[in-house]
Amino acid sequence: MNNDTALLLIAASESDSNLYYATRFLAPDPFVFLQIGGRKILLMSDLEIDRARAQARVDEVLSLSEYEGKARQRWQSPHLIDMVGLLLEAHGVTVVSVPSNFPLEYADRLRDKGVRVSARPDPFFPERLIKSEDEIAAIAETQRHTETAFEAAVGVLRESQARGGQVSWQGKPLTVEHLKKVINVSLMENDCVAQHTIVACGIDGVDPHNQGSGPIRPHQSIVFDIFPRSSRTRYFADMTRTVVKGKAPDELRRMYDAVLAAQLRGIELIRDSASGQAIHAEVTRTMEGRGFETGFVDGRMQGFFHGTGHGVGLDIHEPPRISKVDQVLKAGQVVTVEPGLYYSRWGAVRIEDLVVVEAAGCRSLTRAPKAALLEL
Amino acid sequence: MNNDTALLLIAASESDSNLYYATRFLAPDPFVFLQIGGRKILLMSDLEIDRARAQARVDEVLSLSEYEGKARQRWQSPHLIDMVGLLLEAHGVTVVSVPSNFPLEYADRLRDKGVRVSARPDPFFPERLIKSEDEIAAIAETQRHTETAFEAAVGVLRESQARGGQVSWQGKPLTVEHLKKVINVSLMENDCVAQHTIVACGIDGVDPHNQGSGPIRPHQSIVFDIFPRSSRTRYFADMTRTVVKGKAPDELRRMYDAVLAAQLRGIELIRDSASGQAIHAEVTRTMEGRGFETGFVDGRMQGFFHGTGHGVGLDIHEPPRISKVDQVLKAGQVVTVEPGLYYSRWGAVRIEDLVVVEAAGCRSLTRAPKAALLEL
Repeated sequence: MNNDTALLLIAASESDSNLYYATRFLAPDPFVFLQIGGRKILLMSDLEIDRARAQARVDEVLSLSEYEGKARQRWQSPHLIDMVGLLLEAHGVTVVSVPSNFPLEYADRLRDKGVRVSARPDPFFPERLIKSEDEIAAIAETQRHTETAFEAAVGVLRESQARGGQVSWQGKPLTVEHLKKVINVSLMENDCVAQHTIVACGIDGVDPHNQGSGPIRPHQSIVFDIFPRSSRTRYFADMTRTVVKGKAPDELRRMYDAVLAAQLRGIELIRDSASGQAIHAEVTRTMEGRGFETGFVDGRMQGFFHGTGHGVGLDIHEPPRISKVDQVLKAGQVVTVEPGLYYSRWGAVRIEDLVVVEAAGCRSLTRAPKAALLEL
Repeated sequence: MNNDTALLLIAASESDSNLYYATRFLAPDPFVFLQIGGRKILLMSDLEIDRARAQARVDEVLSLSEYEGKARQRWQSPHLIDMVGLLLEAHGVTVVSVPSNFPLEYADRLRDKGVRVSARPDPFFPERLIKSEDEIAAIAETQRHTETAFEAAVGVLRESQARGGQVSWQGKPLTVEHLKKVINVSLMENDCVAQHTIVACGIDGVDPHNQGSGPIRPHQSIVFDIFPRSSRTRYFADMTRTVVKGKAPDELRRMYDAVLAAQLRGIELIRDSASGQAIHAEVTRTMEGRGFETGFVDGRMQGFFHGTGHGVGLDIHEPPRISKVDQVLKAGQVVTVEPGLYYSRWGAVRIEDLVVVEAAGCRSLTRAPKAALLEL
């Protein structure tokens, strides 16, 4: 990829982290970003142009309606891409690199105008994966709020009573829905939004993406996976803890110890230039070495069948992956380490921390305790 | 467009409303959807396959890892699109329609395999714009929670004191940030998430997309624009109200009356087959008729310079637009009606309700009062 190739993005920065990263400007509707050499140019509607001029970290903000005026001299009802075509023309650009998720309709329209459009493989901005100290501080701050929210839920579990196969709180059956509300309201109080907090009890947790619902049952695993985004900084955090209300069966405690050992082993191996694939293999081996195998049982995958970790930043799932795929870690990346075990007979255990990859190891951003399965 | 053309979507349904609409299955990571004739097929990872089989409203859920196994017989490290290619091959599909936002990288890879890929112009599923009674009920429910949240903020304003250019609440200066928190926590208690609530006081409101910040000042316009999504149903609502803490200047009250008259006129004109363009023109004329002109003043757009309304559903901004663009309304659409006036000398007024287009008129989903500028 030629570094001088012009970069073109057309998206709503609210849903496109590359565009937010490039501009630090948040807008709910699509706008146009063109980077030529080091120069960043925006094409903005009247509705956003003042705010863009005040807030966007770019070199120039041009008026979309001025370009629309020019376009009307050539086309009766110009399409956004006609204005983009004029913008490229005005800057002598005939070749653009776009992100892999660039909308096909726009690409085809640009190609019809003779522009050479090629999708650059992810990551579009490789530098986005390496976090600055400010970015790490933002992720750590979201992580603090995540832990506060988790503690609020643990507080409710502590105050609740397990009796006769039920858990009650303030005289009523305690539900997953109530715990999620406690978590999400706590996060909201700290300007964080959690779209899909997982609170999965017993068998629900055995499907790692089941968000959980219904009554909390005693003596079963409860997996809390909390991954909010700060509305202020836009940075995510991600944490998973597994607890039990009541007394854990021995097998669940053994599963917890295996997952913890695997997670600690993974964290030990994380450092600049480490292979994500090798770490994932070692994490998997650690659990297998304790007798926890993976495979199809009763028609469903059981054991450990997801990746060990993923990057976290302006997106909740960023490169690099620590998984079966061959990827190399680099200093400054922020990644999760989250092995788990899932068996329909015993339930689910997952433990997830957030760490910063460093030259000779890693630094954890997670402070919530994990040394033993929390029995409340 | 041939109705028999196969439809292909590859997206995370959490961020792609077309895919959620087609499957009613919510997943955070991209998955593959293929529709041939009326038959809906998913290709799902091991992580999601059980949940997809239980929850997705589709005809068949196939295993991505099985297709990956087949792909490995041909390619050493197959790309997702290799598996999609095999899926299309297995079903004899060589031509696919994709949404306008289909990722360019995927389209180019499919084209390299000889598949004809064309982006269908929005709306991809035209039927998505016509809401069923269940969908209208879901939007109305989110709207009820929106009003509850607004009332909570109004309650704080009522309890606060305006004195000497400041507004204080419980002995401290009342801020926009506090009011937003009150709103967002109230929404969260009802399982609704508001990503970007606008509480814009005085000059901040004059930029319609400024989300607002800092102290609430007395005797100035405060624009509340609240557009949360229900985490349960995934449907949005949208409401704007303008209030004043203290006493409104006469000009602001005149602005309010003009905006209200324009909004009521717009609502009067909404019905099946009405032209959005004609409604927008009449709304604009109503405010001009009261002396409120639009144009550049002091280097910024002032007056009324956004559309009158937009569709609301699984996305906050859906077709149709009620704006300068020529679009025809249809019975069953849910649209906002939200004229506003913005002058740097006097502040901002916007009033927004949500209505269902019907054969001979429209039905409002908004119950919050608006008859007069609320002075608290």
